[in-house]
Amino acid sequence: MLETYNNRALLVDLYELTMAAAYFEHRIDCRATFELFVRQLPPERGYLVAAGLDSALGYLENLRFTDDDVRFLREQPAFRTVSDSFFRYLRQFRFTGEVRAIPEGTLVFGGEPILQVTAPVAEAQVIETYLLSVINFETAVASKAARVVTAARGRPVWEFGTRRAQGPQAGVRAARAAYVGGCAGTSNVLTGYLYGVPLAGTAAHSWTQVFPTEREAFQALLDTFPETAILLIDTYDSLAGAETAAKLGRKIKGVRLDSGDLLEKSRQVRQILDRHGLRDTIIFASGDLNEYKIEELVAKGAPIDAFGVGTDLATSRDVPALGVVYKLVEVERDGHVEYKTKFSEKKAHWPGRKQVFRFSRPVAGKGKGGDGREPRGEREEFHHDLIARASENYPEAAPLLDLMMREGRRVDARPTLPEIRSRTLWNLERLPERYKPLHDGPRYPVANSAALERLLEEVRKHYVIAPEISKASRVPADAAMSETLVFLDVDTQVDFMDPSGALYVPGAETIVPNLRRLMTYAGENRIPVLSSADAHQPDDPSFARWPPHCVVGTPGQRRIPETQFASETVIPNRPGSFRPPTKWEGQFVIEIEKTDYSVAGNPNFDAIIAALGPCHFVVFGVATEYCVRDSVLALRQLSLPVDLVVDAVKPITEEGGRRAIEEMVAAGVRLVKTEEVCAPAPVATR
Amino acid sequence: MLETYNNRALLVDLYELTMAAAYFEHRIDCRATFELFVRQLPPERGYLVAAGLDSALGYLENLRFTDDDVRFLREQPAFRTVSDSFFRYLRQFRFTGEVRAIPEGTLVFGGEPILQVTAPVAEAQVIETYLLSVINFETAVASKAARVVTAARGRPVWEFGTRRAQGPQAGVRAARAAYVGGCAGTSNVLTGYLYGVPLAGTAAHSWTQVFPTEREAFQALLDTFPETAILLIDTYDSLAGAETAAKLGRKIKGVRLDSGDLLEKSRQVRQILDRHGLRDTIIFASGDLNEYKIEELVAKGAPIDAFGVGTDLATSRDVPALGVVYKLVEVERDGHVEYKTKFSEKKAHWPGRKQVFRFSRPVAGKGKGGDGREPRGEREEFHHDLIARASENYPEAAPLLDLMMREGRRVDARPTLPEIRSRTLWNLERLPERYKPLHDGPRYPVANSAALERLLEEVRKHYVIAPEISKASRVPADAAMSETLVFLDVDTQVDFMDPSGALYVPGAETIVPNLRRLMTYAGENRIPVLSSADAHQPDDPSFARWPPHCVVGTPGQRRIPETQFASETVIPNRPGSFRPPTKWEGQFVIEIEKTDYSVAGNPNFDAIIAALGPCHFVVFGVATEYCVRDSVLALRQLSLPVDLVVDAVKPITEEGGRRAIEEMVAAGVRLVKTEEVCAPAPVATR
Repeated sequence: MLETYNNRALLVDLYELTMAAAYFEHRIDCRATFELFVRQLPPERGYLVAAGLDSALGYLENLRFTDDDVRFLREQPAFRTVSDSFFRYLRQFRFTGEVRAIPEGTLVFGGEPILQVTAPVAEAQVIETYLLSVINFETAVASKAARVVTAARGRPVWEFGTRRAQGPQAGVRAARAAYVGGCAGTSNVLTGYLYGVPLAGTAAHSWTQVFPTEREAFQALLDTFPETAILLIDTYDSLAGAETAAKLGRKIKGVRLDSGDLLEKSRQVRQILDRHGLRDTIIFASGDLNEYKIEELVAKGAPIDAFGVGTDLATSRDVPALGVVYKLVEVERDGHVEYKTKFSEKKAHWPGRKQVFRFSRPVAGKGKGGDGREPRGEREEFHHDLIARASENYPEAAPLLDLMMREGRRVDARPTLPEIRSRTLWNLERLPERYKPLHDGPRYPVANSAALERLLEEVRKHYVIAPEISKASRVPADAAMSETLVFLDVDTQVDFMDPSGALYVPGAETIVPNLRRLMTYAGENRIPVLSSADAHQPDDPSFARWPPHCVVGTPGQRRIPETQFASETVIPNRPGSFRPPTKWEGQFVIEIEKTDYSVAGNPNFDAIIAALGPCHFVVFGVATEYCVRDSVLALRQLSLPVDLVVDAVKPITEEGGRRAIEEMVAAGVRLVKTEEVCAPAPVATR
Repeated sequence: MLETYNNRALLVDLYELTMAAAYFEHRIDCRATFELFVRQLPPERGYLVAAGLDSALGYLENLRFTDDDVRFLREQPAFRTVSDSFFRYLRQFRFTGEVRAIPEGTLVFGGEPILQVTAPVAEAQVIETYLLSVINFETAVASKAARVVTAARGRPVWEFGTRRAQGPQAGVRAARAAYVGGCAGTSNVLTGYLYGVPLAGTAAHSWTQVFPTEREAFQALLDTFPETAILLIDTYDSLAGAETAAKLGRKIKGVRLDSGDLLEKSRQVRQILDRHGLRDTIIFASGDLNEYKIEELVAKGAPIDAFGVGTDLATSRDVPALGVVYKLVEVERDGHVEYKTKFSEKKAHWPGRKQVFRFSRPVAGKGKGGDGREPRGEREEFHHDLIARASENYPEAAPLLDLMMREGRRVDARPTLPEIRSRTLWNLERLPERYKPLHDGPRYPVANSAALERLLEEVRKHYVIAPEISKASRVPADAAMSETLVFLDVDTQVDFMDPSGALYVPGAETIVPNLRRLMTYAGENRIPVLSSADAHQPDDPSFARWPPHCVVGTPGQRRIPETQFASETVIPNRPGSFRPPTKWEGQFVIEIEKTDYSVAGNPNFDAIIAALGPCHFVVFGVATEYCVRDSVLALRQLSLPVDLVVDAVKPITEEGGRRAIEEMVAAGVRLVKTEEVCAPAPVATR
């Protein structure tokens, strides 16, 4: 069987083996925990469907180095300086560790560990390459399939892509992953043989061409397959082909269209078939299809009964690889745990073993507004995820990582493939519609637990890496041209900015020239501006901690003149006060009222972000360690790129500001200066 | 070995086997010839490097259906109506055919058969899926590798992508294909084992993290691998890492940078290393690299000695699949040959067995202008390819398709992998620089032989498919937004257009209102316009066939006022008369003088096309079957999309015009009307 051929032990990057050798030679046998995750979802994906776990566990169970493998390695120049005992160790090598993972068919998001390995460090290292590759690829294809299946709205989608897959073996795994993602089946026979996936097929143009006439070709196929043949009718002219088929006077299971305008052709073919009484003959469509084309065909009412999707599905063509990584997060040595992270630019990760908690909430029955007055239905929807330390517990949420393998053996029976596919469909049903559009939209919220954030801070202290602004500002902008540049002006209100204000941020007035420059630049370049503004009632509970400030109707609540625009819309802090414009007219400038530190506290925030489309934020204002920090982290949780203008923010305390900046940098924020932002071309398109 | 595991016979689309069954049941055992080719190069590729042939031939040699395979197939519902004798046939199935192919490591272009199979029709059909998949994938990666290697200008490029490949097996084939494309080697150990590809590796961030300090991590690695270790220095801070490494006081083979601004970091690291006398320590760079980033780093003089390239290379990320197809071109039955094609929209192909002829010409020594006065060097450059019928012979050109397999067995020993790699490098050296920029540029010319064109015309007559203009005009525009829309106005000169002209095209004056409308539209939308114009000397040899017309300096040679612009540049019909503008100013409007039918006869034509960048042509003028036809086909040979404005062209004879339009449609031209072109938004961006 394809799954059990030899030599998978050598299907590994050389450095995994040289590191294993060096661990062995230095008798380093601590237990290490690595986590495998996708740093950030690509812009084209709002969710992923976990897949590849079965491949990963099968590999771990059977991993052995043969004599031949070991002999080959010994001959490599790289291993010349390695002792014999390492090769004896390799010959005995088994994976003896523990694996936790999110089951196949579960939706996962950026930053969430899909798989977690705890094992002696050399073992945990050697398996990296293979695990990354199978999870990366199968998750990519299952996720793509879920999008295509969603677009087809109940019409079956068949995977037809082996011929354009990245090699025939990739075709087999892609076909399995497509089924995991919700496809009806595949044309790949071996996938049927190995995994019981349903098989389908039609006929090729060559079949028709071999016969003197199309009619004879159709007849011959129906003679051999009277009940199952699907006739390909577009070798010469699809309408003439449909007529020819219909006039045979036989029952025909289906016809396939593989070219031309599928909407118009399918309508005409349907008419021809119906006119000849072939109302049960299905129309099968194929030909470079993907979720976007299928969505359009379905929306326009094309009478297509089933879709065959090839290249785009089998290669996840628009996202052929996910940014999947395998990172050391913890080492246990002599009973003592060390938490691990690293600080390479843009490549930092969170330390410690984690668990992902998924919070759901019941939603009102179908078609109801969900305003609380409707009777609640039975249905639950996913509400948000929390990435927490493994030791935390949230009884109201579902933990996603399950123990899959202990001491190198699977702890449970493998789920069947139909079970996995059902899990995918169950998950997709529970993801709110707004998080699964095919095009860009709001991102499903994923937060880190406070305990995890504290752990990062502790680990960081060990390494004393203070971000130097001058260094960070050299990082080149990598914003995509298609992202809208948006300014977020945080709480530049009189009560904070003015020395006489009720909650004056010390020195805030010194950043006013930069604020003015930023706002002028925004006006000149028609950059959308969101201005957040505290808007408290006189009895706001936060006044227990802070002096009363920014009370609605008082002069101190107003924003300073330097950050105001002539024409602004105010979005009050209550649901439904923002209506997305149907058409952009003029510059998009709004004031978002809030009572929380974070601008995301305004219930309209998600809708505003959705209206902006893909965007890249430039943030400034006060105070660095409260409203700026919380708003920035909220943006980062939505995976939005953020530049913080370091000379246009002010903290309440220096120490608080410094720590907040470190925290934001760790969350992927880029530090910039006003003069960089206001360079001749807008930042996002430099 | 990976190559010989079982079950490859089932690694096939179901329909290949159902068609085989139906051929068997109908006793259809004609010999069929299929050709495998890429219809058109994707915009991101100026050439392809043929690869995957070894996989294909290995598959064909070993293809067998086991008892298990056959048992599985019999159980499938699709095969319920198939007789037992077919399954006995399958059990005995061998590939017994003939294979011709372009050797791995050879450059190939759009439309050129890479592989040609002649075999009993069922055999030739069954192998389709596997052959497409291996040639598609390995050619895609080898081609990507050649681009990356070209960008690195002599610095070694190592393939590091297995972890992000489309499954580990794809990683092995990608690593081999990357080596075929010119890479120095790979990190994939199995590829070293199976094919002898050189191996390289460094260390991971986790290695550094496991140790209490970076210094200890470096020391430990150097203890085990004193001569080969490459230290990864960016786990915490790459400059501090470089200092730590340099201060160890040991010889170090190399250091690796995997994050941040590689240009600046490599410069600073080089300084640190040099300051500590480590002048021989190489700097190895990695981290989401591709040919564009490497080109920029090399151009800016980054002191990087070697590159590791992963995801982009192993998945050919920007072009994860080529549009490779496998088409029936010929059937031999009872000693009689039938030529095959089909007419599906955009999916037509050329009938008959083909050969590809590559014409080269000697070029002057390096750095010489090649103006003929310099002594000619030894070097030859590829000049153009001709796709011809297999029976044709061009002694001055190299035929590219070689006999590889006869009666199912390889005819020659397999070339070694280093030989294949050398062939790639030899080929790349011979492709003129102008055809291998990383970004868009002129396309290497590929033409069809006259005999092949005649054959298509004969086959077409058999099927009597007259294109209906009303139908073709419904085809939706699929021009990419990034293509420039360009108008080509063909020979709208007084001698052709005016009833009193020397070579009046009957009824030409009736299209003048449409010509005026098109030109007005071009002016309003600043669409570049190329106007071709016959410019003959009084003694032009073509005046033997045609009455003297369009003689330079006569009023009849001028273009009619309706197609003239106020400001035009004339490009005379001699080399070097066109200089690409360094900056676009105003609208690009030129008159291209010519003596041939085709505007491409002007020696400046390629330079003009190159100056325009990727473009989409809208063509009109006279006469349909001569200058319009030849100019359009020349554009199509450059793979440029062409719309023909059917109500703004005129033929000399109705029959000639009709045939010319059929021919252009077969070559992929879209038919449009003036009012569609002049719709509110430009055609190319609708």
